[in-house]
Amino acid sequence: MNKPPKSKVHDPRKLGWMKGFPPPHDKVIRFAEKSFYAWPQLRWSLSHIDELMPTKRVWRGPGPCRELPQRPRVFDDAMIVTLNGTELCWGDALEQSYTDGLLVLHRGEVVYEEYFGAGAPDVRHIIQSANKSFVGILAESLIYEGKLDADALVPVIIPELIDSAYSDATVQQVLDMLIGMEFYEDYLDPESEIWRFHRATGMSPPSSMNQFELVADVLPKVKKAGRHGEAFAYREPNIFVLGWIVRRAGMQDLTTQLSERVWQHIGAEHDGYYIMDPGGAESSSGFTLRDFVRFGELVRTGGAIESKQIIPAAVIDKVLRGGDQDLFAKAGYKTLPGWSYKSQWWIRHLADRNCAVARGAHGQVLYVDPENELVIGRFGSAPKAPSTLLDDIFLPMLDVITDRLS
Amino acid sequence: MNKPPKSKVHDPRKLGWMKGFPPPHDKVIRFAEKSFYAWPQLRWSLSHIDELMPTKRVWRGPGPCRELPQRPRVFDDAMIVTLNGTELCWGDALEQSYTDGLLVLHRGEVVYEEYFGAGAPDVRHIIQSANKSFVGILAESLIYEGKLDADALVPVIIPELIDSAYSDATVQQVLDMLIGMEFYEDYLDPESEIWRFHRATGMSPPSSMNQFELVADVLPKVKKAGRHGEAFAYREPNIFVLGWIVRRAGMQDLTTQLSERVWQHIGAEHDGYYIMDPGGAESSSGFTLRDFVRFGELVRTGGAIESKQIIPAAVIDKVLRGGDQDLFAKAGYKTLPGWSYKSQWWIRHLADRNCAVARGAHGQVLYVDPENELVIGRFGSAPKAPSTLLDDIFLPMLDVITDRLS
Repeated sequence: MNKPPKSKVHDPRKLGWMKGFPPPHDKVIRFAEKSFYAWPQLRWSLSHIDELMPTKRVWRGPGPCRELPQRPRVFDDAMIVTLNGTELCWGDALEQSYTDGLLVLHRGEVVYEEYFGAGAPDVRHIIQSANKSFVGILAESLIYEGKLDADALVPVIIPELIDSAYSDATVQQVLDMLIGMEFYEDYLDPESEIWRFHRATGMSPPSSMNQFELVADVLPKVKKAGRHGEAFAYREPNIFVLGWIVRRAGMQDLTTQLSERVWQHIGAEHDGYYIMDPGGAESSSGFTLRDFVRFGELVRTGGAIESKQIIPAAVIDKVLRGGDQDLFAKAGYKTLPGWSYKSQWWIRHLADRNCAVARGAHGQVLYVDPENELVIGRFGSAPKAPSTLLDDIFLPMLDVITDRLS
Repeated sequence: MNKPPKSKVHDPRKLGWMKGFPPPHDKVIRFAEKSFYAWPQLRWSLSHIDELMPTKRVWRGPGPCRELPQRPRVFDDAMIVTLNGTELCWGDALEQSYTDGLLVLHRGEVVYEEYFGAGAPDVRHIIQSANKSFVGILAESLIYEGKLDADALVPVIIPELIDSAYSDATVQQVLDMLIGMEFYEDYLDPESEIWRFHRATGMSPPSSMNQFELVADVLPKVKKAGRHGEAFAYREPNIFVLGWIVRRAGMQDLTTQLSERVWQHIGAEHDGYYIMDPGGAESSSGFTLRDFVRFGELVRTGGAIESKQIIPAAVIDKVLRGGDQDLFAKAGYKTLPGWSYKSQWWIRHLADRNCAVARGAHGQVLYVDPENELVIGRFGSAPKAPSTLLDDIFLPMLDVITDRLS
């Protein structure tokens, strides 16, 4: 796990980023200089991505927001035993996992809602790769409606990928991250594929203002390595291929599809946003924590709200049944024993139930446990990206919350 | 006036900007290369600024939108005689003034609503300098509440401006654009003050990614020329000084103040947005046309909605009484004889009434005629910026609309 700094000098409220009219020069956070992704600026930036980058909004529709009923419960006295055996009180566990917000819905009621760092009820936090799970739901909905064939080879839908790793991959293999590919992820080499990729998606500033390479230019160059369908391998290009597939099959951008299929129906309080890349394609998205858990609640209830089916129940069932645990095990995630991956969701298989989890870099989690009528949403801004670094604290927290409520 | 191109090759629907997943390279519009502000890309860009630049949203609040009642009237058979004597049919007048949308509210009911180009009911168009009039209302509200002294010298509120043109200017002189200043507006010289200014405000891409000059760095360098209070002079720095004043006096950014004072109370259908500059300050804003006229309707009704006072009636009265017509005349606007300027609103003084007008580059207009219970909102994307170039067609259109409804 991350060793927390001894002091709270990373707290954005204390550091005063972007405060004042104008803020002092050394308190300015800008996209151009990449300071927005430096530490500890990151603790502010992840809650203000739309003020740093171009976005397109996910419209909530014209209706009123559906209030979340309140039934507060106390968790402050809980003790957390981390995966490596350390005892932490509730407050320390929240702080040491760099929490920006935590919201627990039980039977559709808010039993816990607290914000830290730059978090607040009306602040939209980037959900990073938790967005993959949103796109997974869109893709599975298209499959259910017969607009997308899960067994089709990718080039049938995206001919541009005929000479890439995806030439003989199926849509379902992309959804399940079972693609064998070469992908050079050396973050220390600015010319490595991962950086070219981040620049093309607009998630990293270009080397020069005139650089111009779209994701659609980079993806066809991804080369195959090994065989598809033999091991879970969590690789960024897959979600961009999936987004491309969903746009082509749904004949609309992800923003519009997510708004029309989901956001206009869940009583959302706020519009969401998608970060727009220079080619007009979406990368990750941002939402308020309350709206994030509203989406989780839709998954928990099998896709229905007040007897109105928003997402087909079969789609939710397919996700919750999970994927192949043996293929998942090959990826070697020590904190996730017995888990699987299905349609862009991480699936936790327990003795008596399955839980669906959306996970994003720096501490974004949406945890759905239908058996226990439980949805937990968490935003964070940890200094390091990998979600696994926070599992040590957060997975035991999930279980403490679950125990208290069941 | 602009000579319209003979063909409709500038119609963004026909040119296919940013269409397809992905769009072809030559149909991509990007902020970085300034193609977004080239012609005819501009016809698409002004309706998609938030997808090109960082923004902060003007929240509409959690409530339902207040539907605008419909009472359609026919205008298509109207003939327009332009200021230079040309006869145009209604459709040609709309097209030759590069209209993206036109909405007429009479007694609070929609009598005309049409969209063209990249316009649509749910599309947020940048309102350019029409935003100045919004900020004017915020400033006058603060003055009314005693939080801002109209007669105070600017450096009392913004000490940073003590050595600038604003050292001996009053807040009201800034509001009324009566500031004598040197401001080198040579658009052909990239080092001229106007370009430094546009780069600092984030409205123009920086020369390099590492360039870093805030508006608050540029404004103190604006030098005085002549005397204040002697002539109307419409200069960009004034609105940025005013924004700075409103932020300091209101102790919140413009986004929050506009949301809390106005947008949460007018039954808006959509959030608006402010373009955020690299120092966290707002420049211009964008809204849907329906929400734009909802704001106009608030001005028309003296700041009240259904007997609830949203903006003080005295603020609206002060604006509508207008400014000094003699001082205005010195600026030499040929299309605006007898007009004045008050608190960031252009005031049309007619024999029997005053009308308040918000105007923005490339054809944005919000026209409020309380005497005739009329509000007209217009979005446009004309090739050239000056509003006066469209007056030739649009002022006679206003009068045709007024005549038909009264």
